[in-house]
Amino acid sequence: MHNRKRKRSHRITRARPGAAPGTLVADPSAPKSTVQVLCYSPDQLIEQPLTDVRELPALLARWPVVWINVEGLGDADLIARLGETLHLHRLALEDVLNLHQRAKVEQYDTHLFIVAQMVAAGPPPEAEQVSLFLGQNHVVTFQEGRPGDCFEPLRQRIRGAVGRIRQAGADYLAYSLLDAVIDGYFPILEVLGERLETLEEEILARPDRRTISTVHEVKRDLVALRRVVWPLREALNTLVRDESALVTPETRVYLRDCYDHAVRIIDFVETYRELGADLTDLYLSSVSQRLNEVMKVLTVFTAVFIPLTLIAGIYGMNFNTQASPWNMPELNWVCGYPFALSLMALLAGGLLLWFRRKGWLGSGPARNDKPPDRDRPT
Amino acid sequence: MHNRKRKRSHRITRARPGAAPGTLVADPSAPKSTVQVLCYSPDQLIEQPLTDVRELPALLARWPVVWINVEGLGDADLIARLGETLHLHRLALEDVLNLHQRAKVEQYDTHLFIVAQMVAAGPPPEAEQVSLFLGQNHVVTFQEGRPGDCFEPLRQRIRGAVGRIRQAGADYLAYSLLDAVIDGYFPILEVLGERLETLEEEILARPDRRTISTVHEVKRDLVALRRVVWPLREALNTLVRDESALVTPETRVYLRDCYDHAVRIIDFVETYRELGADLTDLYLSSVSQRLNEVMKVLTVFTAVFIPLTLIAGIYGMNFNTQASPWNMPELNWVCGYPFALSLMALLAGGLLLWFRRKGWLGSGPARNDKPPDRDRPT
Amino acid sequence: MHNRKRKRSHRITRARPGAAPGTLVADPSAPKSTVQVLCYSPDQLIEQPLTDVRELPALLARWPVVWINVEGLGDADLIARLGETLHLHRLALEDVLNLHQRAKVEQYDTHLFIVAQMVAAGPPPEAEQVSLFLGQNHVVTFQEGRPGDCFEPLRQRIRGAVGRIRQAGADYLAYSLLDAVIDGYFPILEVLGERLETLEEEILARPDRRTISTVHEVKRDLVALRRVVWPLREALNTLVRDESALVTPETRVYLRDCYDHAVRIIDFVETYRELGADLTDLYLSSVSQRLNEVMKVLTVFTAVFIPLTLIAGIYGMNFNTQASPWNMPELNWVCGYPFALSLMALLAGGLLLWFRRKGWLGSGPARNDKPPDRDRPT
Amino acid sequence: MHNRKRKRSHRITRARPGAAPGTLVADPSAPKSTVQVLCYSPDQLIEQPLTDVRELPALLARWPVVWINVEGLGDADLIARLGETLHLHRLALEDVLNLHQRAKVEQYDTHLFIVAQMVAAGPPPEAEQVSLFLGQNHVVTFQEGRPGDCFEPLRQRIRGAVGRIRQAGADYLAYSLLDAVIDGYFPILEVLGERLETLEEEILARPDRRTISTVHEVKRDLVALRRVVWPLREALNTLVRDESALVTPETRVYLRDCYDHAVRIIDFVETYRELGADLTDLYLSSVSQRLNEVMKVLTVFTAVFIPLTLIAGIYGMNFNTQASPWNMPELNWVCGYPFALSLMALLAGGLLLWFRRKGWLGSGPARNDKPPDRDRPT
Amino acid sequence: MHNRKRKRSHRITRARPGAAPGTLVADPSAPKSTVQVLCYSPDQLIEQPLTDVRELPALLARWPVVWINVEGLGDADLIARLGETLHLHRLALEDVLNLHQRAKVEQYDTHLFIVAQMVAAGPPPEAEQVSLFLGQNHVVTFQEGRPGDCFEPLRQRIRGAVGRIRQAGADYLAYSLLDAVIDGYFPILEVLGERLETLEEEILARPDRRTISTVHEVKRDLVALRRVVWPLREALNTLVRDESALVTPETRVYLRDCYDHAVRIIDFVETYRELGADLTDLYLSSVSQRLNEVMKVLTVFTAVFIPLTLIAGIYGMNFNTQASPWNMPELNWVCGYPFALSLMALLAGGLLLWFRRKGWLGSGPARNDKPPDRDRPT
Repeated sequence: MHNRKRKRSHRITRARPGAAPGTLVADPSAPKSTVQVLCYSPDQLIEQPLTDVRELPALLARWPVVWINVEGLGDADLIARLGETLHLHRLALEDVLNLHQRAKVEQYDTHLFIVAQMVAAGPPPEAEQVSLFLGQNHVVTFQEGRPGDCFEPLRQRIRGAVGRIRQAGADYLAYSLLDAVIDGYFPILEVLGERLETLEEEILARPDRRTISTVHEVKRDLVALRRVVWPLREALNTLVRDESALVTPETRVYLRDCYDHAVRIIDFVETYRELGADLTDLYLSSVSQRLNEVMKVLTVFTAVFIPLTLIAGIYGMNFNTQASPWNMPELNWVCGYPFALSLMALLAGGLLLWFRRKGWLGSGPARNDKPPDRDRPT
Repeated sequence: MHNRKRKRSHRITRARPGAAPGTLVADPSAPKSTVQVLCYSPDQLIEQPLTDVRELPALLARWPVVWINVEGLGDADLIARLGETLHLHRLALEDVLNLHQRAKVEQYDTHLFIVAQMVAAGPPPEAEQVSLFLGQNHVVTFQEGRPGDCFEPLRQRIRGAVGRIRQAGADYLAYSLLDAVIDGYFPILEVLGERLETLEEEILARPDRRTISTVHEVKRDLVALRRVVWPLREALNTLVRDESALVTPETRVYLRDCYDHAVRIIDFVETYRELGADLTDLYLSSVSQRLNEVMKVLTVFTAVFIPLTLIAGIYGMNFNTQASPWNMPELNWVCGYPFALSLMALLAGGLLLWFRRKGWLGSGPARNDKPPDRDRPT
Repeated sequence: MHNRKRKRSHRITRARPGAAPGTLVADPSAPKSTVQVLCYSPDQLIEQPLTDVRELPALLARWPVVWINVEGLGDADLIARLGETLHLHRLALEDVLNLHQRAKVEQYDTHLFIVAQMVAAGPPPEAEQVSLFLGQNHVVTFQEGRPGDCFEPLRQRIRGAVGRIRQAGADYLAYSLLDAVIDGYFPILEVLGERLETLEEEILARPDRRTISTVHEVKRDLVALRRVVWPLREALNTLVRDESALVTPETRVYLRDCYDHAVRIIDFVETYRELGADLTDLYLSSVSQRLNEVMKVLTVFTAVFIPLTLIAGIYGMNFNTQASPWNMPELNWVCGYPFALSLMALLAGGLLLWFRRKGWLGSGPARNDKPPDRDRPT
Repeated sequence: MHNRKRKRSHRITRARPGAAPGTLVADPSAPKSTVQVLCYSPDQLIEQPLTDVRELPALLARWPVVWINVEGLGDADLIARLGETLHLHRLALEDVLNLHQRAKVEQYDTHLFIVAQMVAAGPPPEAEQVSLFLGQNHVVTFQEGRPGDCFEPLRQRIRGAVGRIRQAGADYLAYSLLDAVIDGYFPILEVLGERLETLEEEILARPDRRTISTVHEVKRDLVALRRVVWPLREALNTLVRDESALVTPETRVYLRDCYDHAVRIIDFVETYRELGADLTDLYLSSVSQRLNEVMKVLTVFTAVFIPLTLIAGIYGMNFNTQASPWNMPELNWVCGYPFALSLMALLAGGLLLWFRRKGWLGSGPARNDKPPDRDRPT
Repeated sequence: MHNRKRKRSHRITRARPGAAPGTLVADPSAPKSTVQVLCYSPDQLIEQPLTDVRELPALLARWPVVWINVEGLGDADLIARLGETLHLHRLALEDVLNLHQRAKVEQYDTHLFIVAQMVAAGPPPEAEQVSLFLGQNHVVTFQEGRPGDCFEPLRQRIRGAVGRIRQAGADYLAYSLLDAVIDGYFPILEVLGERLETLEEEILARPDRRTISTVHEVKRDLVALRRVVWPLREALNTLVRDESALVTPETRVYLRDCYDHAVRIIDFVETYRELGADLTDLYLSSVSQRLNEVMKVLTVFTAVFIPLTLIAGIYGMNFNTQASPWNMPELNWVCGYPFALSLMALLAGGLLLWFRRKGWLGSGPARNDKPPDRDRPT
């Protein structure tokens, strides 16, 4: 989600501002497109790269479920030819190429068009757009083409015929793909949750400038995550409720489960966001409290020593004791020096007592430096 | 709700990311499963551990109400067998094993599936997931298996035939279980309410770093509580409104009461959350005000003593009075020393007067150390 | 609303956690119950204590409107007997005894059950629960039994046959009771509004720690008031819209007026809450600004006097002027002392000039101590 | 909106708490009522004071549109008689006399009852309640009677037969009145917008305590304005949608335009409220930043001069150089004094260098006193 | 959006307060109106200025699509004549002339009236109102007449017959115009996003007063942008859903895409607003933390040097050592001076050690001046 500046800039906009709607222009920096086809029936399975789009009609005619996976969006021509062969709408294909779409479900004549954002785990979490067309007996997916995707376990299940996937139709495949996308959010949430907990401990123990910038980063990641998940939830809700003939009632039960997961993710994101906001408050309170303690130390030191310095200064004055008996007779007293020192001690003692009664000495450094106890007595 | 880091981490995710939906995998650290059966009619009651799942059909055929309670989710096989015997849906059973679900109600062919979170009183409040299947004449409950549950008083009422429970059907039993779960929230609320009040007094009297970390803990507990109660409210609303044949209209009146309790809990949680937010503000204001007072003390001390020290310093200079009559003639004055002291006293007095008129001496330590009076005059 | 800790604690929960629903248990500290009956027709009126519940059916048969008012909830048996005689639902009666209910309207077979919270004026505002059953020709009200209620003016109107109350039925009586409850909120709002205004003036003129704790109290009272009024509004909305045969269309017009008042109260509460939040901001800003001023005074004093003290210190050094001509020749200058004093004056003047140009002397104490002018020029 | 304390207090409540609903009691401090009648047809127009209510039926029978305008609410009897003559509902008349109503539209048998709040421009903005009854061929308006109303331009248009008003019916007159009320809000918004802009400049340039109290005043005015406009929007929405026979479809198009204006006003109010909240943040940030700068100056001064003072103090000590060669031999050095001064210069230079590298000298007073440039480079 | 004060002021209000609705008054400072007509069919195209409004009916009769574009709103008469010729409603024309309208769609008898705000890229972003009438075979657009509009690429596409625009009707032209308006928002978003990122880096590295005023500017621009986009979204939603005969189902699919873009823009605006709010928090936290560090430096300097100064002061006192052996015997000690220096060194060392253990020396300047590392370790 948090990309470099230069990268993000050109991504918000359409390929070419002012271009006719439905114009397909590939991002010049996008990786080359490769197409992989996976066809299966309950008993059989082939998995092969697609070299020529014209092979597709034959495959679609033969297999009950065909999954066409396009990795890399660098080849607008290939994608346009694929779209023509499968009758995909130009506006939808434009959305495939223009990244940073919101998750959404759109009903076209022969296809359901679904956009979602996959999120990869490493901080900062990186979003990758997955566009999915669900047709009668086929699913077309488009990925940005970053190395690694979250569909590998699903491929394993298809190859190994684990669960009901080989018996079910294309709609179940689409569900499984969405489910895999959503499952990919949970590890991110775990990482963020753990970082929040670490930060909380750090703030209570010894906050510094690094802490607050990390809190800010976590909050920014949560804002980004939230921007991605909310529309996904809406899209899934549309999928569960709408009466599209492409989705069987049986698969709808599974989509409801998927929607449920999206709601749980939002729950976590919102909870973490509140915790993040609380951490900022906690940080400010903690820093204020520490400032208070610093100032108390400064004040106690200043207030105790400055009067003593004044006394020392007074007896350092050079008034001529011979000029008159009024001039600093203390200097010639037998106990003049002890008297001055006692005066200082008395004054210091009195001030310290006063500060102790104000409670400014109570929260001394020794007691405060250990972090507050986590087991709270009730 | 606030578990240890390591524990929580593995809990957010599904049992095994990428696993086929409906896969039942027990958390290896979960306690062993034990099954307890309680069957009753208006006149009779048996209560026994269930050793073999195959005994169930006979019990279900004989008794008007059968309550199967599973404690501990460590035995996925047992739960799978139980599910098959009672025709429970695999997706629902998966949710039973994957903790940290949101409270929800789901309608399946033969069962209503209800998930809720019990909360145990001790701080920090700990959530325990209760999954409940309501069938024609039976209720199946799954608990995580922590020691102690909130259903004991209900069991007592069934054994003692208190109230209408022995006359009523399985739906009333399910209601009673949910009611017990919800009743379990009130003590937590009381504890939190009392802690907030204590904190308020503490902040007004003598806030320290421990205070703000405790405020943060209470707020975090409230966020967690809120995350648990809101979906429960929604779920109960669904139960009251939906037209499931499994719930009689009479029980629906009781469920409405239950829903009412959930709404009251949310009211309290939201009110406490606002109080918590106010406490943070109060803390910040209080610390700011105290800082102001500390700084006033520092400023008054510094501003009063530094000029005096300067005077003492001036008369401590070693200019040669013999070199010229302009050189520190005061040193040889008859009243030089009293003059210098009077000058200091005058200056100090003037400055103190100035500060008093600015009001900086008014909020002295004696007046401020008593906490503000709680009985406000109007 | 703001009760003592011990009192509130036992009130949140049900009478006895785990008790069967519909169990009537009186709070042992609740005042003794007394029942007062007021029966009236357009021409006649009797008002008497009810000594035996069995007298009720005769009264109900004879009078067009009967108002049974129970003060004090200490006698669960009496209330249970009353409930049986009038066919009141057990769940509703349980809510009568368990205080701190949300305001609500519930439709039962023969009665409308309405709960509301009266608020007494003195700070802190105290809520008292009023439960009201509206039957065909009777109204039953239950009050907690604190001294004084807000129904006295209504009783006067019934006795004096003022307005249309003696002509109208039991539903108009119920409306009048609710109207009296809602009218009781306005004086509280006035008190809170005046306190907010006083606080605003205080914060702008001379904020201290008492101020912020009072702001907090007002905000807490507003949160409590809000918790009480919002459900009342909802309940009244239900009453206005629902098609209960117990409420005539004519009374519905009056209930709409009542609902309107509730909305106005909420408007005031929300506005006051915003003002309260603004006051906290204002307080923080005001304290920050004052801290700034304190620090400027400190800085100016320190920065001006410390260099002077250094000069005095330098000429107080004891270097042996006889050892070399480089050693403090100033001491033997004819104008050494005036030179030193002039140096100090010059330095002080320069620094003061610098601070004046920074604007730190501009916001002096004299100008700032008068509160900002309230008539703003535009 | 911002009235004096005493005035506002008695206004929140009903005329007399506990009074029967529909009781008409005038505020004793309200100005005397005067009634003005304006009757017009496309060709004719009369405008006269109404001396006797009994003249009304004749006027209503004769003229296609009659506008009865009551200024001043001091005469409850007159208003009651007017109400009886025109069959206005008692509850509505009670709302006419009890000020501080929310804007609303209420349907009665023969009339639409509309309440709105006019706002006068001068700060603080003052609200004046306008109550309006729309009957078959007449409009009755009640104003509080402050000098000046916003209906004068409308009267001019009626007199001059400008636009379609003389052709249209009473509903168009009611629309025109509401439109005039809403048009009156725009100048207030302009004043507030300009004040916000001035404040923004002030905060960035040189914030003082007056600034923040002005920000608070603007925010308070916006809260008050908002409380008045939101219900007006709702009321207009009701008017546009409800199917009252009193409003022709043609007028409804004009009311939609009116509703549109209300929505725009709310847009501005909400935007200004956000700007106001931002200004508080900006103020706090600005004050914090300034505090930081003040503290840097203090710290630099203190940290640079205190070590120098220590050196001067050390060489001011009176150790007996004759007692031992270890005792302050520097005092007798040939270059003792220049050595001490150089030491001081060196130390001061070193510390200044250190502070410069920390960047504490960089944000000096000269650079900071000019307000930040408004033309931002990109 | 951010105009000069004087400009904005007169713009909020209607042309002339109190004027009859539908009065067309041009802003005297508005640029002169020029009308340009572009008519096209699939094969042909003419593009010419319109000198006389009476030519229009002929053009409308001949061409399948006519686009009448009015630049500059200075000529109310011309606009009124145009309105009469094309039967545009007076209220709509009034909205054309009164700028700062909210985006909206209004259905009139023969036209759809659409208002939107174009935004130009340079900071501060400037809004320009576009009013659009969609008739059977024509579109009329009104622009404020600032140099440059966002419709040039569209004109190019019409001239070059790129895409389906020449084949489609007036509704597709209206869609293309709205699409161009919305596409114009994306560059603004990019600029704002980049500024937010720069600000974040600045705050973490070295915040000054300029930073916070820039944050405030960005937030203000976002508030303004939001005020413009939300109503546009609503308007587009109305367009997509309403069943106007003027919009074909085919164009509706394109409008849905347009609506989708508006939703994405709102997503970005809201996300940026949250980031902006976070930046203010971050700034405050950062400034607080820096203040803490400044204060630590001050405290350490003061606390370490003041006691040393006291010692120097004590041994600078002038007590007469000859008067008694108690009077400052240290002065005559052989090692008096080294003893005093050692005492100072010891004290300073002890205090530094104490501060080091408090951790106040740890966050020294060297470590803190480099901005926190952006690659966060997990």
